[in-house]
Amino acid sequence: VPSKLPDVGTTIFTVISREAAELGALNLSQGFPDFTAGPELFDAVARHMHAGDNQYSPMAGQPALRAAVSAKMAAVYGAQYDPETEITITAGATQAVYTAITALAGPGDEVIIFEPAFDSYLPGIRLAGAIPVFVRLEAPHFMPDWNAVARAITPRTRLIITNTPHNPTGATWSLDDQRRLAALCDGRDILVISDEVYEHIMFDGREHASACRVPELAARTLLVSSFGKTFHVTGWKVGFVCAPPSLTAEFRRVHQFNVFAVNTPCQLGLADYMADASRYLDLGAFYQKKRDDFRARMAGSRFELLDCAGTYFQLARYDAISDEPDAAFVRRLMREAGVATIPVSAFHHDGFDAKLIRFCFAKSEALIAQACERLCAY
Amino acid sequence: VPSKLPDVGTTIFTVISREAAELGALNLSQGFPDFTAGPELFDAVARHMHAGDNQYSPMAGQPALRAAVSAKMAAVYGAQYDPETEITITAGATQAVYTAITALAGPGDEVIIFEPAFDSYLPGIRLAGAIPVFVRLEAPHFMPDWNAVARAITPRTRLIITNTPHNPTGATWSLDDQRRLAALCDGRDILVISDEVYEHIMFDGREHASACRVPELAARTLLVSSFGKTFHVTGWKVGFVCAPPSLTAEFRRVHQFNVFAVNTPCQLGLADYMADASRYLDLGAFYQKKRDDFRARMAGSRFELLDCAGTYFQLARYDAISDEPDAAFVRRLMREAGVATIPVSAFHHDGFDAKLIRFCFAKSEALIAQACERLCAY
Ligand SMILES: CSCCC(=O)C(=O)O
Ligand SMILES: CSCCC(=O)C(=O)O
Repeated sequence: VPSKLPDVGTTIFTVISREAAELGALNLSQGFPDFTAGPELFDAVARHMHAGDNQYSPMAGQPALRAAVSAKMAAVYGAQYDPETEITITAGATQAVYTAITALAGPGDEVIIFEPAFDSYLPGIRLAGAIPVFVRLEAPHFMPDWNAVARAITPRTRLIITNTPHNPTGATWSLDDQRRLAALCDGRDILVISDEVYEHIMFDGREHASACRVPELAARTLLVSSFGKTFHVTGWKVGFVCAPPSLTAEFRRVHQFNVFAVNTPCQLGLADYMADASRYLDLGAFYQKKRDDFRARMAGSRFELLDCAGTYFQLARYDAISDEPDAAFVRRLMREAGVATIPVSAFHHDGFDAKLIRFCFAKSEALIAQACERLCAY
Repeated sequence: VPSKLPDVGTTIFTVISREAAELGALNLSQGFPDFTAGPELFDAVARHMHAGDNQYSPMAGQPALRAAVSAKMAAVYGAQYDPETEITITAGATQAVYTAITALAGPGDEVIIFEPAFDSYLPGIRLAGAIPVFVRLEAPHFMPDWNAVARAITPRTRLIITNTPHNPTGATWSLDDQRRLAALCDGRDILVISDEVYEHIMFDGREHASACRVPELAARTLLVSSFGKTFHVTGWKVGFVCAPPSLTAEFRRVHQFNVFAVNTPCQLGLADYMADASRYLDLGAFYQKKRDDFRARMAGSRFELLDCAGTYFQLARYDAISDEPDAAFVRRLMREAGVATIPVSAFHHDGFDAKLIRFCFAKSEALIAQACERLCAY
């Protein structure tokens, strides 16, 4: 069978999580919490299932959930999105990004991504027949060099994929960054996919610089986010997309023939659960405590922790311990210390290795304590 | 925004279901039941949610559900599929078909589909950059003309998409049909996507001629089915794919970057629920009663019902009532009789109109009785 993605193996998150399970290692690799939502969410879903809400949702999503997203975007960012023509519920943020790339880019189009980049962007671009163009974010701050972005733009640039708060680095853009991006796009047929799945996980008083807060940018942006990351149910695979009507229309043209619609009882349960805004507004404070706890417990280790302004990921240098490539070091750490992590080279198309590994600290205090003890002893 | 699918509107099922809701018409259009699964299924899902099973499933699906599918395929068809390398859980059958087309066909490849065809196949082919080739199934029996299929095959034929039991016609293939297909593919690099979502809805003692029962065919086939259709939860969007390891590997390469994984608690609940095989083995008898009831109640109408050997769909001629195009007649019937149906021309790329409409009889006796009363009076 000839392959449409000949260079692609199984995604790193699946590979490492499986290896961690086999070795019985503590899993700080794949990004998911070891805690979950409040029982009210599960009771709401169960109520809807028992009430018979188990058939196809409308292709664009349950009206109640789209209304809840619209209200949230207005309350948090002052952004107006019409539930009917500008909001679509997706089978997770990955499906949203994949569908958006498919809908907006085609053969000959150039798509700019910032590396390190989440590993689904590039295969999506390749399957669309489009041409990836890479702009590297440089350690230790991983903020975009806007001159480099300007040089990467050509008359064939069709799409730029952005991500703030940024996985895997924890870097967060400012509104000024979003304005620089808007200025670079000005006068050109460039669209933006803004991956904002960690929108509610910002630290130290920072406010999330959502693309929707810069009107010139919002007009050309398909904003993607995730209920799974916000409500500790990453395995439910429910996300959403906010975009102007013309972009939403193109998105839905593909969406309806890809997944058609999304799990009905989970959509309805999430709509009920979102009525209490503290469930997402308090998320930054919740994870900031975990970040601080993780960093404090790692102080005695030989890992050098980089800044972490958002997300539930923490990057670390390990050059005081080893000069191995990051993929080899991750395997050794998993075997010898019993802690699973992610090599940052997996976020680079060319395997570029800055000798960095990623920890996920979306874990219980007990697990963090145990993992840090092992890492400090290592 | 230039469109990747310029000729495509909103899928007919969404359009008609919305119009039916606006008009308060009885909805025999989109294919979903107005009843649902047993409460044990919902209790099982709730149990898993409360137990904390809410994070990412493995990319290929929950091992328990893959094992249940493997056991079912062996028990029902005598087919052996290894859960690890040959079974993948999908976000519904539509996502499975879309992902399969994307993984297996590309620019320059020809893909044969039989029309009338489910409306997601063609956009999937176009988005992959492949070339659709149409073979028409002729009323009243809608069985393939194998000479026509032979003529449609060229050196560029890469993929053939089949569907039995067939939506919208209710036609069902025999094992001999599957053997004819295998013979035509013999010696060529042709792969098959076999859409078998109505596998358990076969009438009058017929046995489903699954592609997996013909080994020469199974070796080149990606078989797609649906839990939603089998367990009356179409809105859960959980399906599965069975295919030999090399095809499964290519499927997963795309799947992991499209949806990545599928709703965890629903997968686990379905695995529990499948332990009682009567829940799918009795489905044919269950729907046969509904078909017979529907047909008996329609005997006094001026609609001419065609044969229905499987699925929960029933085609009808309306030429004794009107000579309008089917799309116009469907709108009139919805307004004037208060019953929503689907025009079969929506399953043809060129709008070919055989003056046929489709009823869905996956409905309660009360709804069927009320709808048939209106249709007989019309
Ligand atoms: C879709 S699996 C990966 C989860 C995640 O976002 C990460 O670990 O980076
Ligand atoms: C995916 S919506 C359509 C449901 C269905 O299978 C049909 O009505 O044919």
